[in-house]
Amino acid sequence: MFILTVKPGERQAAAPPGAPAEMEGAMARIRVGILGATGTVGQRFLALLANHPHFVVTAVAASDRSQGKPYGEACAWRLPGDMPPGVAALVVRAPEPPLECDVVFSSLPADVAGEVEAGFARAGYAVISNSSSHRMDDAVPLLIPEVNPDHLALLDACPGAGRGFIVTNPNCSTVMIALALAPLAARFGIEAVAVTTLQAISGAGYPGVASLDITDNVVPFIANEEEKIERETRKILGRLDGGRVEPAPFVVSAQCHRVNVVDGHMAAVRVRLQRDADVPELREAFAAFTALPQQLRLPTAPARPVVVRDEPDRPQPRLDRDAGRGMSVTVGRIARDAVLGHRFVVLSHNTIRGAAGAAILNAELLVARGYIPLRG
Amino acid sequence: MFILTVKPGERQAAAPPGAPAEMEGAMARIRVGILGATGTVGQRFLALLANHPHFVVTAVAASDRSQGKPYGEACAWRLPGDMPPGVAALVVRAPEPPLECDVVFSSLPADVAGEVEAGFARAGYAVISNSSSHRMDDAVPLLIPEVNPDHLALLDACPGAGRGFIVTNPNCSTVMIALALAPLAARFGIEAVAVTTLQAISGAGYPGVASLDITDNVVPFIANEEEKIERETRKILGRLDGGRVEPAPFVVSAQCHRVNVVDGHMAAVRVRLQRDADVPELREAFAAFTALPQQLRLPTAPARPVVVRDEPDRPQPRLDRDAGRGMSVTVGRIARDAVLGHRFVVLSHNTIRGAAGAAILNAELLVARGYIPLRG
Amino acid sequence: MFILTVKPGERQAAAPPGAPAEMEGAMARIRVGILGATGTVGQRFLALLANHPHFVVTAVAASDRSQGKPYGEACAWRLPGDMPPGVAALVVRAPEPPLECDVVFSSLPADVAGEVEAGFARAGYAVISNSSSHRMDDAVPLLIPEVNPDHLALLDACPGAGRGFIVTNPNCSTVMIALALAPLAARFGIEAVAVTTLQAISGAGYPGVASLDITDNVVPFIANEEEKIERETRKILGRLDGGRVEPAPFVVSAQCHRVNVVDGHMAAVRVRLQRDADVPELREAFAAFTALPQQLRLPTAPARPVVVRDEPDRPQPRLDRDAGRGMSVTVGRIARDAVLGHRFVVLSHNTIRGAAGAAILNAELLVARGYIPLRG
Amino acid sequence: MFILTVKPGERQAAAPPGAPAEMEGAMARIRVGILGATGTVGQRFLALLANHPHFVVTAVAASDRSQGKPYGEACAWRLPGDMPPGVAALVVRAPEPPLECDVVFSSLPADVAGEVEAGFARAGYAVISNSSSHRMDDAVPLLIPEVNPDHLALLDACPGAGRGFIVTNPNCSTVMIALALAPLAARFGIEAVAVTTLQAISGAGYPGVASLDITDNVVPFIANEEEKIERETRKILGRLDGGRVEPAPFVVSAQCHRVNVVDGHMAAVRVRLQRDADVPELREAFAAFTALPQQLRLPTAPARPVVVRDEPDRPQPRLDRDAGRGMSVTVGRIARDAVLGHRFVVLSHNTIRGAAGAAILNAELLVARGYIPLRG
Repeated sequence: MFILTVKPGERQAAAPPGAPAEMEGAMARIRVGILGATGTVGQRFLALLANHPHFVVTAVAASDRSQGKPYGEACAWRLPGDMPPGVAALVVRAPEPPLECDVVFSSLPADVAGEVEAGFARAGYAVISNSSSHRMDDAVPLLIPEVNPDHLALLDACPGAGRGFIVTNPNCSTVMIALALAPLAARFGIEAVAVTTLQAISGAGYPGVASLDITDNVVPFIANEEEKIERETRKILGRLDGGRVEPAPFVVSAQCHRVNVVDGHMAAVRVRLQRDADVPELREAFAAFTALPQQLRLPTAPARPVVVRDEPDRPQPRLDRDAGRGMSVTVGRIARDAVLGHRFVVLSHNTIRGAAGAAILNAELLVARGYIPLRG
Repeated sequence: MFILTVKPGERQAAAPPGAPAEMEGAMARIRVGILGATGTVGQRFLALLANHPHFVVTAVAASDRSQGKPYGEACAWRLPGDMPPGVAALVVRAPEPPLECDVVFSSLPADVAGEVEAGFARAGYAVISNSSSHRMDDAVPLLIPEVNPDHLALLDACPGAGRGFIVTNPNCSTVMIALALAPLAARFGIEAVAVTTLQAISGAGYPGVASLDITDNVVPFIANEEEKIERETRKILGRLDGGRVEPAPFVVSAQCHRVNVVDGHMAAVRVRLQRDADVPELREAFAAFTALPQQLRLPTAPARPVVVRDEPDRPQPRLDRDAGRGMSVTVGRIARDAVLGHRFVVLSHNTIRGAAGAAILNAELLVARGYIPLRG
Repeated sequence: MFILTVKPGERQAAAPPGAPAEMEGAMARIRVGILGATGTVGQRFLALLANHPHFVVTAVAASDRSQGKPYGEACAWRLPGDMPPGVAALVVRAPEPPLECDVVFSSLPADVAGEVEAGFARAGYAVISNSSSHRMDDAVPLLIPEVNPDHLALLDACPGAGRGFIVTNPNCSTVMIALALAPLAARFGIEAVAVTTLQAISGAGYPGVASLDITDNVVPFIANEEEKIERETRKILGRLDGGRVEPAPFVVSAQCHRVNVVDGHMAAVRVRLQRDADVPELREAFAAFTALPQQLRLPTAPARPVVVRDEPDRPQPRLDRDAGRGMSVTVGRIARDAVLGHRFVVLSHNTIRGAAGAAILNAELLVARGYIPLRG
Repeated sequence: MFILTVKPGERQAAAPPGAPAEMEGAMARIRVGILGATGTVGQRFLALLANHPHFVVTAVAASDRSQGKPYGEACAWRLPGDMPPGVAALVVRAPEPPLECDVVFSSLPADVAGEVEAGFARAGYAVISNSSSHRMDDAVPLLIPEVNPDHLALLDACPGAGRGFIVTNPNCSTVMIALALAPLAARFGIEAVAVTTLQAISGAGYPGVASLDITDNVVPFIANEEEKIERETRKILGRLDGGRVEPAPFVVSAQCHRVNVVDGHMAAVRVRLQRDADVPELREAFAAFTALPQQLRLPTAPARPVVVRDEPDRPQPRLDRDAGRGMSVTVGRIARDAVLGHRFVVLSHNTIRGAAGAAILNAELLVARGYIPLRG
C-alpha cells in the first residue's frame, strides 16, 4: 500500500510503517496547527484536542487582528469552562506556511480558506479542512470515515515525496444526513432524498446569527446551505471510479431553516428506496451500522455511529446532541411516508460531528492509514 | 325568541335579503357564546370579537373549575393587554345548552368537544368549532371560506326549522397549507404534497409545552398532528359529490416539529404539480389569489389571503405572523425542487388564521350565506 | 414667553404663536429628518411617525454605506409588517446639514452623534436626540415630558434668531426608572435607589447581541449602562437652579443584565424614601400620576404614564410592553423591603417609551411650548 | 465525638468508627433510596450517584402514579443521555418506610415532604432532604458543608440508638448566596444584603414553567422564593448557641425573577459590610475561600467552592454553570456600590449545587463525621 509521507525524509525514519499500536505511547505526538483558531470551530478543535493521544497543538493561526498576541489574550473563549491550559501561551500566527507543526486543521472562513489551504498543501502539509472551499475539488476526498474511507485513494493519484494534501469533511448538516443514509444505501439502495433541516445557531459561528433574528423566530434561509447538502451528499455516497468520484445517482432536495437552538442540527428526512423494506428493517440497518473507524478503534470514533431512539418524541437537540460525545448521530421517528416511502428524523452535534470532531476523526483515519506518519 | 333556521325560507324573513349595508348598524348583533372561553384559543376569540360588527359575546362557558365565577376572576388573561371590558362580568357557565346566545364558538379540548358540540347542534345552535372532533364527519363542512365555500352545501342535507349544525375549521397547520395549495390546485393540479412543519408553542394551549422541553430545543413530535394534516388537507381540497366530499386524489405527507416560537406556524412544502409551471407562474398564482370572502368583504377577511414575499429569508414568524391582522398566510422561497418539482415556505398566525380567526371568518360566511340569520 | 424660532423669518409669520388647536388641521405638518434612519431605533421612528398629526418625514440620513440609495432599497426592514409607504422612495443622505427638513430626530451611534448633532444645532435645526452624547451637557435638557418639562428653560439661556438646539431623552432603562420614581419623589422624597435591570436584546440595536451570547443565557453586563442610569436619573429628577440643573441629592446604584427578551426592559427597584409611607400610598402615588403631556393631550402621550398591575406575577415584558401603545410604564410587586424600605418592579417598551417614542413625545412638547413652530 | 448510629445494632459492628480511608474500598457502599425519584431533582440524584464511591442506589420511591412500575418504564428521563444502567430495573415504591436502603435522599414536593420525611426519620433512617418542609425546624440543620458544618451539632441533641434524623440543604438560590457571603461574613462582617435573582426554569421542576410564560419573557415572581432566601440565609450564617441556631443579625432582601435559561441561577448581590474593604480584598476573600469539604476531600466537593472570574461580562449561566462539575459557584463583577457599599454577581448550577449535589455533599459530610456509618 502506498504511504504518503508528508515530509518523508525525517518522518519516515521516525515513524516506522508497521509500528504496532503498543509503540504509540512511546512516540511523540504529531504536532498540529489550527487555522482559524479564534473562531467557534477553532475553539472546538482546541477543546477536543486537549489530551488527544496522537495530536498536540503547537501552533494557532487566524486571519484576523489577533495575530501576534498570545492566544489567551487574543481569543474570547466562548465554550463552557476554561480554554485548555497549554494553549493560552501560543502566539497567534498568520495563516501561512511555515507553521510550527506537521498537520494543519483548518476552519478558516470560506473566502480565505481556498488559497490558504492550497498554499499549505503545496508547502507539504497535511491539511485537514472543515471549510467548504475544496470539498468539491476532484482530487480532494470529502470524507466521512464510516462512509467512504475508500475515497482516500484520491490522494494516491499524485504521490510523491514532500507532497501535502487536503482532506475535507462535509458541511455540518450533510455529515449527519450522509451518515444516516449510508446504511440505507448499502442495504436497500436510494432513489431520492428530501431533507428539511432545523439548524442550530452555533453553525453560523460568532457573532453569527443576531439574536433579534432568531428569538421567538425561525429563519427559513441559510446561505448556500441547500446547495451544499444537495451536492455534497451525492459526492460522499458516490462511487470511486477511475481515480475520480462519480456522484451517487439519486436526487437530493434540501430546505434549510435556522432555529433557536444553541447546538444540534436536526433534519427531517424522506427517502425513496430502490427496494422496499419495512420499518423494522430500516431500524435494524441504522442500529447495526458500524464501520472502519469502529474496527480501528479510532480515538474519536463513537461506539455506535448511528444511535436509534424509539421514543416518539426523539431525537431532541438538547437531549441527544452529546450522544457518543457528540460523534454519534441519533435517528428516530422511522416510519412509512405517503409520498416517498420512508421517513425519519436525524440529529447530530453540529460543531463536533458536524465540524471539529469530523475533521479530527478524518485525521485519525489518515494516521491509521499511514497518510499522516506517526513520529518516533 | 330565537329560532335558528338553516333553510333560508324563514330565515330570510329574519334577515331581509338585499338588506343594505347601512341597515346592519340598525340590527342587533348576533349573540354568541364561547365554549372553552378560558383557554388560549378562547381568549383569542374574545379579543377578536371585541367590537365585531356582527357578533357580540353574551355567554362564556368552560369545562373546568371556573364555572360559576365571573370570567374576570376565573380567567388568567394571557394575551398582551387587558381582557375586553364587557367580558369580565360574564359568569362562566357549564358548556351545555341552553346558553344565553344564538351561536356558539367552540375551542373545547378534543376529548370533551365531540359530545358537547353535538348536543348544542341538536339543541338548535349553530356551532362554529375549532375542535378536531367533528372535522372528518361526513355531514360536517371542514371549511376555509377562501377554499371550499361550496362545502357548506353539506348543511343543506338535513334542513328543517330549529335544526342546528356544526361547521369546523381545520387544524392550525392544515389551514395555511390548504390555503396555499388552493391556488396551485386550481391552476396546475396537484399530485403529491410533502410538508414539514415548524410549529409555535401557542398551538398547544396553556400550560401546553413545558419550557424545559422547548428551550434550546426542538421536539419532532406533536400528537396526531401529522395524521390531521394528511387527512384534513385532502378533505378541504376535495370535491363535493352527491352530498358528500370526495377527498382530493393526491397524497399528503407531513412531518411535524415544535419549535421555540410563541406564535406563527411555518411549513416547508414540496409539491408535485399535474402540469409543469415555472416559478413566476407559481408566484403569480399565489399573489393573484382572492376568493369569496374578499368579494363579500367579510369583516375578518384579509385583503390578500396569500401574501408573497420575495426576500430570500422570508417568511419569518415574528415578522410575518400578523400580516393581514393575522388572517393572511405568507408564502416565500418559491423554487424548483429536485425531488417533487416545486417547493415553498408558508407561514401563518396559528391562533388567528389557524384557530379563532378561522372560526370567526367561517361564521361571517355563514351569516352572509344566510345559514346564520341576522337579527332585526 | 420666549419662542425660539429655528428659521424665524418665514416660520414666525407662518406659525402664529397663539394659534388655537383647531387651526392645526389647516397647517402643513412639520418636516422632519431621521438621522440613523436604517437602525433599529430609526425604523421605530419611521413606524411611529407614519400618520403623525404634526410631523411628516421628509428626509432620512445614515452614517453607513446606504447613502445615495432609496431607503426602500438601503434598509432591511426588521419590524413586523412593511415599512411605511411614503418612506421607501426617500434617498438616504449623509447625516449633515442641510437636510430637507425643519427638525431632526437622531438615533445615531454615540461615537458619531456628538459632532453631527452639534453641527445640526449650529445650523439652526431643532435636534431631538435619542443618543447619549449630549445628555449630560449643561445646556441640554434631558427631558421626560411627564417629569421635568421645566428643564426646557435651559434652552432659553442662549436665545436668538436662527439658533438651533438639542433636546435629549434618557437612556432606555433610565426613562422608566425616572418616570416611576417621579411620583414617589414628589410625594415622599427619595434618599436612595438601587435598581437591577433585565434588559431586552433590541436595546442593543442590530445586529447587536449575538444569539450565541443570549440563548439559554444571561449577560450581566451592558457597556456604560450602569453609569448612565446612575447619572441620568439624578439629572432628570434634579432641580433647575440659576440656569443649570442641580442633580437630585440621592444616590443611585444600578446593576444591569441582558436577558433573552425581544422588547421590554424590566427593573427591580428598591427605594429608600424620605418620609415613610405604606404600600397603598405608594400604589396610589403611581396610579394617580398624570402630568403635563396628559393635560396637553400630546398625540403620543399615554392616558396613564404609570399603569399599576396588582397580579403577583406582573409586569411581564411580553404582556405589558405595549401598554399605552408602548408609552406607559407598568409597575407591579409594590412591597416593603427589609433593606431599603420599599421595592417594586417596573417595565416599559425600550424602543418606544425608551427611545423613539420618548423623542417624539419630547418633540410634541417642544411644539406645544413653541420651541418648534408650527408651519402655516 | 458522638456518633449517631442510625440502626446501630448491625451497623456499628459493620462500620468500625476509626476505619481508615484505605478500608473504604473493601467496604460495601451505603444503600440509598431516592424519594421523588421521577422528578427533575430525583433524576439529578440518580445521575450524580452513578458510580459514587460511598453510595449505591437500591431503592426509588415517588408519590405519583408510577408506583409499582420499573423505574425505566415509569420515568421519562429528561436529562441528556440515558438513565444510569442499574436504575431502570428498580421498582418504584411508595415513599414510606421500610425501604430497601439505609439512607434516603428526598426531593419530594413540599406538600408531601413534611410528613413523609418525618416518618422516615422516626423509623430510624438518615434523611437527607432537598425539600423545604423542615429547613427552618429548630432541630434540623440547614447545611452547607463549606459554611456551617458546626450546625450538625443540632443532631447531637437527641442522640440514641435507632434514632434517625433529617438534614436539609437550602433553597436553590439561597445556597449560592450563602456560599458567596460566607467568606465576606468571616472577614468583614455583614450588615445588610439585597439580592435580585434571575433564576433558571429547571428550578421549577417538570413540567414546571409553561413555555408560553417564559419565551420572550421574564416572570418577576417565584412563589415563596423571596421569603425563603431572606429566612434561610440568616439561619445558615447564624451562630449555634445553646443547642439552637441564632439567625445572623443582618437584614436580607430578595427580589426574584424567572428568566429563560435552562440551568443556572444568577443573583445580583449588594452587600453592606461591617468594616470597609476595597475591591481587591473582596476578590481575595472569595478566591482564597476553602473549607472543611475541601480539606476532607469529600468526593463531590469542588476544588474551589467560589470561582472568581475577572472578565467584565461573567458569570454567565451557559458558560459557568458547570464550573467544578456544577458544585462551584462563580462570582464576578465585584465592585463598589453607591447605595450599599459593595456588589457582585454570583451564579451556580441550580440542580447540582442548588439541589441534588448539595444534598449529596451533605451526606458525604455526614459519613465523614460518622453520622452515617460506613458498612463493613
